[in-house]
Amino acid sequence: MTENLTWHSHTVSPEQRRRLKGHGSALLWFTGLSGSGKSTLANALEQRLMTLRVHSYLLDGDNVRLGLNGDLGFSDHDRVENIRRIGEVGKLFVASGTLCLSAFISPFREDRQRVRDALAPGQFIEVFVDAPLAVCEQRDPKGLYRRARAGEIRNFTGIDSDYQPPQCPEIHIQTDQLDTEQAVDKIVDYLKRHGVLTP
Amino acid sequence: MTENLTWHSHTVSPEQRRRLKGHGSALLWFTGLSGSGKSTLANALEQRLMTLRVHSYLLDGDNVRLGLNGDLGFSDHDRVENIRRIGEVGKLFVASGTLCLSAFISPFREDRQRVRDALAPGQFIEVFVDAPLAVCEQRDPKGLYRRARAGEIRNFTGIDSDYQPPQCPEIHIQTDQLDTEQAVDKIVDYLKRHGVLTP
Repeated sequence: MTENLTWHSHTVSPEQRRRLKGHGSALLWFTGLSGSGKSTLANALEQRLMTLRVHSYLLDGDNVRLGLNGDLGFSDHDRVENIRRIGEVGKLFVASGTLCLSAFISPFREDRQRVRDALAPGQFIEVFVDAPLAVCEQRDPKGLYRRARAGEIRNFTGIDSDYQPPQCPEIHIQTDQLDTEQAVDKIVDYLKRHGVLTP
Repeated sequence: MTENLTWHSHTVSPEQRRRLKGHGSALLWFTGLSGSGKSTLANALEQRLMTLRVHSYLLDGDNVRLGLNGDLGFSDHDRVENIRRIGEVGKLFVASGTLCLSAFISPFREDRQRVRDALAPGQFIEVFVDAPLAVCEQRDPKGLYRRARAGEIRNFTGIDSDYQPPQCPEIHIQTDQLDTEQAVDKIVDYLKRHGVLTP
């Protein structure tokens, strides 16, 4: 009986997804020190994108650390694997037609480069969320700098572990010089100029 | 200067996502033997969903095995971890408002149950893609049954490794009795009756 049945496979194309969503897709990779404003900026951008009817999704500590990466600790191996998986999930969201955002310190250039290399040219957009360490430490929204200075947290980025700033980020936001709306404007402007927000 | 800046965080809500997309989200979990028709059915469903302007995405061997789960082999631990990660990524897609499909043999009840438990009630929709082993083996689209019978592949589901069929799947498709379009109709009908396709 099976020979009578039509079981062939057609995958939905990227073009179909783009037409349905009304825009292109990319992975906006926010990197910066703890307290630099990555999550705040990414959330504000998602709100703005919603008003523009753009389909976005934010990967951050809240939804990734306890779930997909809940088996990972803070060893060198696990830090690399953490970023690798986030990059791979970002790639799946990009393939789905979504404008994906990720907000993790991601301090090492090599790890970020690996994610960039896994995506097509133009699909990885690095957003350097930049504030002086002194400013981040003064903000200290989660009290982590205080604990790192007290020696309660080891290998804390900016204190006793390196942060390697992007050398050529697609977007550079100095969060001690722009307010959230200005920073969001700057990113949206980039996305428009590069054809990401058009069908 | 930082005290003058407004840096507060507002996360986009599930309701906003639902309004934008025009429908709800869920994880449609296709399970069944190799050759039962999981990928073919899932791809055909995605094509239909596209005509209904539903935002979907399919996780399958093609986009997951070499990427996110490229570090995993076929040990017991790795098979469990494979399904766990797919479930967690499915959960992220559901959170993004997407109707996520996954097509993996996923032979063990316990692994599937763990994914179900990780999602909210109603968000995990198990689709049992059911065909007799003899039919699957006759189709053998990738020549894997032949190789398993020849002893070239070990632990092959249905040959020398167990397949535990779902006991109460939300949807049961017998692919030796329905053609693709009928099977797609049945799933779309389920989604409509359960309010997944309405804003």
